[in-house]
Amino acid sequence: MKKLMTLAILMVALNSFASQDSIFIRKIYDEALVSGQCYENLRSLCKDVGARITGSAEAKMAIKWGHDLLSSYGFDNVYLQEIKVPHWERGTTEAGWMLNEQKEMLKMNILALGGSVGTEGLLEGEIILVESVEDLEKVGKEKIKGKIVFFNKPFDQTQINTFKAYGACANQRWEGATKAALYDAKAVIIRSLAQSTDEHAHTGSMHYEEGVMQIPAAAISTVDADRMLEWLQKGKVYVKMEMDCRYYADETSYNVIAEMTGNEDDKIITFGGHLDSWDVGEGAHDDGAGIVHSIEAIRILHKLNYFNNHTLRCVLFMNEENGNFGGKYYAEIATENNEKHICAIESDRGGFLPIGFDIQGTPEQVELVRQFKDLLFDFELYKFEPGYSGVDIRPLLNHYPEMLQLGMVINSQEYFDYHHAETDVFESVNKRELELGSAAMAAIIYLMDKTL
Amino acid sequence: MKKLMTLAILMVALNSFASQDSIFIRKIYDEALVSGQCYENLRSLCKDVGARITGSAEAKMAIKWGHDLLSSYGFDNVYLQEIKVPHWERGTTEAGWMLNEQKEMLKMNILALGGSVGTEGLLEGEIILVESVEDLEKVGKEKIKGKIVFFNKPFDQTQINTFKAYGACANQRWEGATKAALYDAKAVIIRSLAQSTDEHAHTGSMHYEEGVMQIPAAAISTVDADRMLEWLQKGKVYVKMEMDCRYYADETSYNVIAEMTGNEDDKIITFGGHLDSWDVGEGAHDDGAGIVHSIEAIRILHKLNYFNNHTLRCVLFMNEENGNFGGKYYAEIATENNEKHICAIESDRGGFLPIGFDIQGTPEQVELVRQFKDLLFDFELYKFEPGYSGVDIRPLLNHYPEMLQLGMVINSQEYFDYHHAETDVFESVNKRELELGSAAMAAIIYLMDKTL
Repeated sequence: MKKLMTLAILMVALNSFASQDSIFIRKIYDEALVSGQCYENLRSLCKDVGARITGSAEAKMAIKWGHDLLSSYGFDNVYLQEIKVPHWERGTTEAGWMLNEQKEMLKMNILALGGSVGTEGLLEGEIILVESVEDLEKVGKEKIKGKIVFFNKPFDQTQINTFKAYGACANQRWEGATKAALYDAKAVIIRSLAQSTDEHAHTGSMHYEEGVMQIPAAAISTVDADRMLEWLQKGKVYVKMEMDCRYYADETSYNVIAEMTGNEDDKIITFGGHLDSWDVGEGAHDDGAGIVHSIEAIRILHKLNYFNNHTLRCVLFMNEENGNFGGKYYAEIATENNEKHICAIESDRGGFLPIGFDIQGTPEQVELVRQFKDLLFDFELYKFEPGYSGVDIRPLLNHYPEMLQLGMVINSQEYFDYHHAETDVFESVNKRELELGSAAMAAIIYLMDKTL
Repeated sequence: MKKLMTLAILMVALNSFASQDSIFIRKIYDEALVSGQCYENLRSLCKDVGARITGSAEAKMAIKWGHDLLSSYGFDNVYLQEIKVPHWERGTTEAGWMLNEQKEMLKMNILALGGSVGTEGLLEGEIILVESVEDLEKVGKEKIKGKIVFFNKPFDQTQINTFKAYGACANQRWEGATKAALYDAKAVIIRSLAQSTDEHAHTGSMHYEEGVMQIPAAAISTVDADRMLEWLQKGKVYVKMEMDCRYYADETSYNVIAEMTGNEDDKIITFGGHLDSWDVGEGAHDDGAGIVHSIEAIRILHKLNYFNNHTLRCVLFMNEENGNFGGKYYAEIATENNEKHICAIESDRGGFLPIGFDIQGTPEQVELVRQFKDLLFDFELYKFEPGYSGVDIRPLLNHYPEMLQLGMVINSQEYFDYHHAETDVFESVNKRELELGSAAMAAIIYLMDKTL
């Protein structure tokens, strides 16, 4: 009888917790959807600042923008965290043409890959088709030598999660140039890592390996890639291209940080996105959305007078796109300062409909998050699977291997229509979906703060 | 031991069924995503036919379009089902202005509600604000008499499912004119049933009750509604409006039907959307998407040589928007012909990301569908809740109360930005999301055919 009584009391208590959580999360959503500021914040980031590649004047503006905005909300602590970052810029000349044996010539939509060397004037060469990086060996040095390698691996359209399709061909962008240089190619053209067939080129990061010849690398639109393929079936294809992109000296830059100090202890929950973007479009989905999600999450918790147990730290990371030095320094400085990191949450998958969180942790941590599935189902969040957290927060795991990390999962169907392309502008983001993302971030921060 | 053996055999058998299902559904998705035709079909419906209100020349074109397309796929049976439909048209004059005591005058974005009478020349009157139909009594006949009632109930932005927000203010469109006429109003202006604040007016169906004065009714954009509200706070506001919309004589029209005859019995699974649309935009989401979802679903099942137990019947319903005579006749003819209807599935919530199916049925039927939750989770379908099926198939339930009905659930966040407005065009539909909708339809038809 006594046991039954205890059980009954426990169940009432649990229900009451659950219902408190449910009421508070409802308040978060109401604030986000009725008095939300993330959409106008994103408009400002996209239109007043614009594209903001690390090291650029716009990146400096973005840091000031973030610091000013966070300061205006009255948190305990808003500050800049100094870091060193690379500085690559596209320059002013960027063009490409393809030509065939029938003397046809077409201007291509081309974008240098981020980190590529320039062409030092006009570069001309014959195209050699290589379906993927893995096929270089099959084609062989004899055919590749002195030519421009065209990597044409397309997205696998059958992947429901488009990030899997992206992941499967991302190496042609990341290491295509270095691998092709080993076969004496003179340059590399890749099919854009894009979902749709359209006229936009998509840039993104690439790197050179030590001791390997540095050859220029650029992406062309999927339409141009299809056309090139078509021409190659009829005969030889040549490309003329010119790019004056280059690296400048490393720069001092900053992560931007705002905190609500913990009331119970000095453990830290980090959440954020990245403030830098590529230098085309406006970095609206990638990752303006994650930035305003994170700012809005802490604004809402603050506005609702949430009494947080642990320190809630909103971080606008710099330099995710080409180096990830914001994330790496953040983790190193945390360790140097003997900070206690228990959880980190990232939003870097766009401003579309949020559907859940990927959980990077032990099976116990996965279950810890999943206990809130029913609660969050009412807000159309349903996906709580083991998975990857985010590029910016990932380095923390090297220093805090036992911490829990979460990556917000967002409807991925349209993401790669905009990713790293001139189409990634404010107008491509829907207000309601962006607001739901902010609310989902705030809700999961609240639940983790209460639970961990 | 024998029991254990039986159990083991049963479990192997069950697993093997599950894995067959999983393999077949994977094939459905592959076909939809790699060789899908729904996106190009939607382009054709939107661009070659366009907006297609019941009774219009375009509606006739749409019937031919549907019949030709379905015939081209080689089903057992493609035919037209004759029905009688109303014929209302907007006419050529439609305009509205608002004026205030400061002599300011602004042209409004206005759309007659579908079914409204015209104004018979220019109609002028003073605006009386009534927050919702329910508030008419509170405002009272004395203040309303001779004026133009402005119903301004906005969407409740806190609803996660936007259809709930829509449902909560839909009566100002449907019965606002009739209710206001009882208070001697001379016309009705409603705030568009729209999610976002923008310049587009949204039309939709309204009706008059027998014996009540028929007064004109129109929707204005949410921006105009907000401006009108602002002006009303400063003084009197007047409206001038002119609309020459009207009813014509009833017409003969058609539902368009294609069948894969059942191999096991003559029971019928109906699935479809509605071929008619409002007369603005291109009816892309509403309900071009449902039309091409349904056509694609039967095309895919046919192409994969699916050996269906029951008759699979794809129906392109006519006249959902203003009368639902397609759905009503379909149900009546079914009964007259002693057809055996066991299941009906509708897609009429747009071409965005599909997320599950609302289940209209008994608790047992709900569980019957939910047994496939895990299977469909891999395709990001997760919502299988009791709910509403669809306007077109709903009349079947009057005749077959024991049948199971399903309504495809689609991410609703953006739907009411486009619904019944000039923005509902092909370009607002994403190829992948549309294809996933087609695959989800085909998958659920397959599962229901195997299970029922």
